[in-house]
Amino acid sequence: MSQPVFVLVRPQMGENIGAAARAMWNFGLDRMRITSPRDGWPNQKAVAMASGAGRLLDEAGIFDSTAGALQDRTHVFATTARPRGLTKPVVTPERAMEMAAGMIGRGEKVAVLFGPERAGLENDDVVRANTIINVPVNPDFPSLNLAQCVLLCAYEWRRHTVETAPERTDMAGTQWATGIEVEKLSGHYEERLDEAGFFFPAHKADTMKLNLRNLWSRMPLTQADVQTLHGVLRQMVRWKNRRD
Amino acid sequence: MSQPVFVLVRPQMGENIGAAARAMWNFGLDRMRITSPRDGWPNQKAVAMASGAGRLLDEAGIFDSTAGALQDRTHVFATTARPRGLTKPVVTPERAMEMAAGMIGRGEKVAVLFGPERAGLENDDVVRANTIINVPVNPDFPSLNLAQCVLLCAYEWRRHTVETAPERTDMAGTQWATGIEVEKLSGHYEERLDEAGFFFPAHKADTMKLNLRNLWSRMPLTQADVQTLHGVLRQMVRWKNRRD
Repeated sequence: MSQPVFVLVRPQMGENIGAAARAMWNFGLDRMRITSPRDGWPNQKAVAMASGAGRLLDEAGIFDSTAGALQDRTHVFATTARPRGLTKPVVTPERAMEMAAGMIGRGEKVAVLFGPERAGLENDDVVRANTIINVPVNPDFPSLNLAQCVLLCAYEWRRHTVETAPERTDMAGTQWATGIEVEKLSGHYEERLDEAGFFFPAHKADTMKLNLRNLWSRMPLTQADVQTLHGVLRQMVRWKNRRD
Repeated sequence: MSQPVFVLVRPQMGENIGAAARAMWNFGLDRMRITSPRDGWPNQKAVAMASGAGRLLDEAGIFDSTAGALQDRTHVFATTARPRGLTKPVVTPERAMEMAAGMIGRGEKVAVLFGPERAGLENDDVVRANTIINVPVNPDFPSLNLAQCVLLCAYEWRRHTVETAPERTDMAGTQWATGIEVEKLSGHYEERLDEAGFFFPAHKADTMKLNLRNLWSRMPLTQADVQTLHGVLRQMVRWKNRRD
């Protein structure tokens, strides 16, 4: 599936360009564009930081203006810390990447603009955007850095495009205990604990037994768990008999 | 609302502890616990990196074991890069923080474990967890660092707890053009363009007019936009008359 282009506008430190590349590739995005990198291009600090994601820098498009970087784009998102008074819709990264996935599915060419470390995007850049992305951070501490903002957008892109079962589990293939197995376990404990005089006083016995059965049935027991629990009880009985 | 405790297990570099504190506070979380920080405690590099989020470090609980840090918790999530063969549910950060919000709403005390930079959590730590969190990264480049993993979990926590209108807009208070205003705009253009001989050839005129009307109605026009567009057309007419 094609993907949005992430455009770093006038980035300052090479380390941040490299960290942004890593953040993109962590979530499968590899189309980076850069406008007027402060320290020129290529940038060795960017390469060093990008390490495994260096390919993104090799293939990055370098432009001398935001307009140039957006020439072939049909929809542009701009990330800003505090939305200005510009007349544009402001959405969360979640909503933005959901929109982007839909647009790209319909053949649109999408870009996401990220501003320079210090100041962020200028209005001159933001006016070129169709939609503003604003990360809903803690208003008392809205200090996301460039790579973090890229990370959150890339994460949301993957969340809305790659089919990850909402809840995978390592327990695939484990043998779950069946109703009858849990029933037998309950019965085993009830019987032995009855002999042991556990259900006392008598007028509380029924409630105690009910609660115990409920305890077993509430647990996500595997067949192995059940065997272990049977074993525990058997051993206690053996031990008791030994002590007689 | 009470919140989950984020536990950094045996963190190595102070910078990463500070960055984790920033990432938490970016999304309004301020309950940090740390077990056996490699370089001791307090850690000046952590303080320097945390800057605005230094309070989290001052108030962080320091423990000498994972068990100690979890004593008062009722549900524990463990973040791992590659889920081991342990019999536990594995969920995404999204699902985990959704679960955590529900649990905390019901009075449970939740912790999220984050492993050391290099190796991540050991099985000894993971067995103490009820649920494993696995970030669905690019399998070809699953290299999230500690602070990034903390950032994504904190982001998801805020996403599932703080009411942020899904789609805020800077256009609150702008005067949208009414149907009649758009109608008049369409009429104005149609009339003048007709005079100008725009709708040619004749047999295409109706379709061209329909498309033009559709163009105006498709746009989210403000009253100011409408005035601008009227002005544009008037000016073209003035200009034309001047040139006669």
